[in-house]
Amino acid sequence: MSRLENVELTVLCLIYHNNHYLLQNRIKKDWHGYTLPGGHIEPGESIVEAVIREMKEETGLTIANPKLCGIKQFPIKNGRYLVFLFKTDSYEGELVSSSEGKMYWIHKDELDKVSLVEDFKELIKVMLDDSLNEFQYVIHNEKWDVILK
Amino acid sequence: MSRLENVELTVLCLIYHNNHYLLQNRIKKDWHGYTLPGGHIEPGESIVEAVIREMKEETGLTIANPKLCGIKQFPIKNGRYLVFLFKTDSYEGELVSSSEGKMYWIHKDELDKVSLVEDFKELIKVMLDDSLNEFQYVIHNEKWDVILK
Repeated sequence: MSRLENVELTVLCLIYHNNHYLLQNRIKKDWHGYTLPGGHIEPGESIVEAVIREMKEETGLTIANPKLCGIKQFPIKNGRYLVFLFKTDSYEGELVSSSEGKMYWIHKDELDKVSLVEDFKELIKVMLDDSLNEFQYVIHNEKWDVILK
Repeated sequence: MSRLENVELTVLCLIYHNNHYLLQNRIKKDWHGYTLPGGHIEPGESIVEAVIREMKEETGLTIANPKLCGIKQFPIKNGRYLVFLFKTDSYEGELVSSSEGKMYWIHKDELDKVSLVEDFKELIKVMLDDSLNEFQYVIHNEKWDVILK
């Protein structure tokens, strides 16, 4: 018995250092604000390799020891959109920005001073709290609710 | 741009206590041996809820605080088979077995005394080693190779 879903597979990574988070000011029209760098996993690609590749492309940094720290998901037609969440404080290289958006080190106590994407704080909570594994959007009464588990 | 894959979504969980692992002696014809209990994630289901439900169905135990500790994947047609790996030492209830196979507590130093499924030890390694996140099968020269990352 096979049970297939249509799934879009992506990664995000929190690169952190000295109480600062490396955030991307995304400039896409449909979805903008300060958020974590990330992108799609290619067909057949290792998930760990994907996060290393995406961080290189979007930040210029070569990360090491990315740690899987949660999953984000939301429903799409006949399936779901999955985000593998990683974090690391190990990296080398020179910070650059990409066409996806400019990169900034933001102190964790100054997050309210920038325009974060809407769900940023709950996402970070799942990634930093060892008792949480999952950020799930569910559609309830035509509204999108966030459930953390 | 949407990049969809055909994905089969499943969970496995290591329930452990006092150096013992709770293993299932799977009796399916196509895949048998001692392994971890697990199963499919239902459409739209939370991944954390799926592992709690599957553990209840296959072991009779109600687990708490399952911790995501890795991903297993292997290629299928136009996509991949994904296994979310969890572990926990918190559970309550009475141990029972299901039609999937009988459950046994096996001491971690006595794993060689039972007939483990082929990739069991590498799977457990990914789940217990904090520096590893992923167990990937890749097809290389018509052979299935395991890569741990």
